[in-house]
Amino acid sequence: MNILIIGAAGMIGRKLVHGLLDRGQIGGKAIGKLVLADIVAPDRPDFAGEVETIATDLSQIGASAVLIGSRPDIIFHLAAIVSGEAEADFEKGYRVNLDGTRSLFEAIRLAGVEKPYHPRIVFTSSIVVFGEPLPEVISDTHCLTPLTSYGTQKAIGELLLADYSRKGFFDGIGIRLPTISIRPGKPNMAASGFFSSILREPLIGEEAVLPVSESVRHWFASPRAAVRFILHAAELDTSSLGQLRTITMPGLSATVGDQIEALRRVAGDAAIKLIRREPNDTIATIIAGWPQGFDAHRAESLGFKAEKSFDEIIRVHIEDELENSLPERV
Amino acid sequence: MNILIIGAAGMIGRKLVHGLLDRGQIGGKAIGKLVLADIVAPDRPDFAGEVETIATDLSQIGASAVLIGSRPDIIFHLAAIVSGEAEADFEKGYRVNLDGTRSLFEAIRLAGVEKPYHPRIVFTSSIVVFGEPLPEVISDTHCLTPLTSYGTQKAIGELLLADYSRKGFFDGIGIRLPTISIRPGKPNMAASGFFSSILREPLIGEEAVLPVSESVRHWFASPRAAVRFILHAAELDTSSLGQLRTITMPGLSATVGDQIEALRRVAGDAAIKLIRREPNDTIATIIAGWPQGFDAHRAESLGFKAEKSFDEIIRVHIEDELENSLPERV
Repeated sequence: MNILIIGAAGMIGRKLVHGLLDRGQIGGKAIGKLVLADIVAPDRPDFAGEVETIATDLSQIGASAVLIGSRPDIIFHLAAIVSGEAEADFEKGYRVNLDGTRSLFEAIRLAGVEKPYHPRIVFTSSIVVFGEPLPEVISDTHCLTPLTSYGTQKAIGELLLADYSRKGFFDGIGIRLPTISIRPGKPNMAASGFFSSILREPLIGEEAVLPVSESVRHWFASPRAAVRFILHAAELDTSSLGQLRTITMPGLSATVGDQIEALRRVAGDAAIKLIRREPNDTIATIIAGWPQGFDAHRAESLGFKAEKSFDEIIRVHIEDELENSLPERV
Repeated sequence: MNILIIGAAGMIGRKLVHGLLDRGQIGGKAIGKLVLADIVAPDRPDFAGEVETIATDLSQIGASAVLIGSRPDIIFHLAAIVSGEAEADFEKGYRVNLDGTRSLFEAIRLAGVEKPYHPRIVFTSSIVVFGEPLPEVISDTHCLTPLTSYGTQKAIGELLLADYSRKGFFDGIGIRLPTISIRPGKPNMAASGFFSSILREPLIGEEAVLPVSESVRHWFASPRAAVRFILHAAELDTSSLGQLRTITMPGLSATVGDQIEALRRVAGDAAIKLIRREPNDTIATIIAGWPQGFDAHRAESLGFKAEKSFDEIIRVHIEDELENSLPERV
C-alpha cells in the first residue's frame, strides 16, 4: 500500500505515522510506501520501505498534483489552519482549509480522468461544525451551523467529500473528532487548552490554571483513540454510509469535575492541589457555546471505539507520554 | 435605494423586477437605481429611475467587483446553473454556483475594507439541500445532505453566507424555495416538470403527461409566493436569525392527486381529461428521493406566507399568466 499523510508533522499526524508503522499493514496489505507532507517537512520515520517527506503548502497551485503523483491508495487529509488562526486570518483560513482541501479533491478527480483512480480519503473534521442551536445530545442528522470560520471550512469540506464520493471520484470518509485530551506538549493559548493542562501539568508535578467552573461539560477522546479512529476509517467498508459520509466519532461526555476526580484517583490529592482556580469570563463565554455530548451510535455500530472514563484517558497519557510512570514527586 | 439583481433574466428574476417596480419602494425607501445582471443582458424595464443592464459571467475574475461597483444597498443573488446542468457538467456547476457565489461575497468583503460597506444579501437556496435521511417533515435544524452537486453548491453557499454575515462583512439571509408550481412557459425536460405541466397545459386546452402516481407528495409554492418571499427577506429584521441565516420557506405539501382535484374544481372535468398517465420509472425513482414536507414554522413566525391550497396556486397562475381568464375551450 502506498499511503499519503497530509498534515504528518502535527500532533495527530506524527502519532498516525507511528501507529501505521507499528502495524506494518492496513486492511491486511503491507505498507510499501509512505509520503509524509506538511507545511514543514515531517520527520523521517524509521521504516524499511520507501519514505518521502515533503514540505508543501496545499493551497498553492499544483501542490496537490505533486502530492498524489505516485497515486497513493489511501490519503489521510489532516492538514488545517487551526481554529484560532483561521478566525484571526480570514483569508488564510479559507485559502488553506477550503481551497487546499478542494484542490486536493480536484487533483484526485483530474488524475482519474487520465487513468482510473479511486483512492480512499480519510478527512478529519471536528465537532465544531456544530454550533447553534445545540441540543444536549447532538445526532449525526443535526444541522451544521458552525460559529467559527474554521468550523465553516470543515463543514464545507464534509459537503465536498460527500459530493465527490457520490460522483465516484474517490471513496471518502470524514470523521468528526472530539476535543482531544490529554494533548501532549506545552500549555498553549487555545481556549480549550485547560481541558488538557489541568491533567497534564499536575501529572508532572506542575501547576495548572482552571478558568471555568467544574460543572462545564464537554466531549473528549485521547490522542490514541483519535489515531485509532483514523485508521479504522481507512479500513472501513464505506458502502453502508450512503450520503452521510462524515461521522461524529464516539467520545466521553465528561465535566471538568469528572476530570479532576479521575486525576485524584490516578495521581492522588497532591496532584489535585496543583489545580489553581482562576475564573476567566472570556473563556467561560466561549466554552458555553460548545457541545456537551453526542449520539455516537452510528459510529459505534461501525466499530469506532472511544475511552469510557477519564481514568482510562489519563492512563493512556501516562503510558504514551510519560513512559508509563508518574514522576516521584506526585 | 440602489438594488442589484443577479439572475435578473430568469423566470423568478423577471418577476422580481416587476414586483419591485410595482411597489416602487423597499423597506419604506424609494428605489432609485436598478442594476440587472445575468449571463445574457436582462430586458430593460419601464422605470423612471436609473437602470443598468449587464451581461456577465459571475464566475469570471473581476465580474463581481464590477457588479457591486455602485455599492448597492440590497443584492438579490438568484443566479445559478440549474440542477440538471450542474449534474451533467461538474466543473461548470462548481465554477458558477460555488466560485461565482464566493467571488461575489469576497468582492463585498473587499469593498468593505476600502470603505465601510454592509449591504443586505438575499440568497436563494433550495429544498434540494436536503437529501438523506429524509424524515416526513423536515425542520430547519435537519442536516444538509444533498444528493446532487447543485444541492451541494447551494448548501456551501448557505454556509458561506452565514460565516460572512457572522463576521460582519454583509447582512445575509438565505431562503430555501419550495418547488415552484405553476412555472410559466413551455414544458421542459426537468424531472420535476410535470408538477407544473399537468396543470399548465390543461388550463390552455393542451395535453400533459403524468409520469408518476397520484400519491406522490411534494412541497410547492407559486412563482408569486417566491417573489413575495424574496422581497420579504430583503426587508426582514435579521437580528433574530442567529447563525441559522437560511430559512426553509413555507409551502404547500400536496400530492399529485391534490393537484388534479384542484384543477378539476377550477377548470372542470374537461381539463382533467387532458392529463395522460404514462408511468416513467426513471422519473418515479428520482422523485422518490425528494422531500415531502417541511416544518416551516420558523419562516412563518418571521412573516413568510405561502399558498394554503392548490386551488389558490392555480388561480394565481390564471391571474398572472393567463390574463385572469381561461380560454373558452376549457
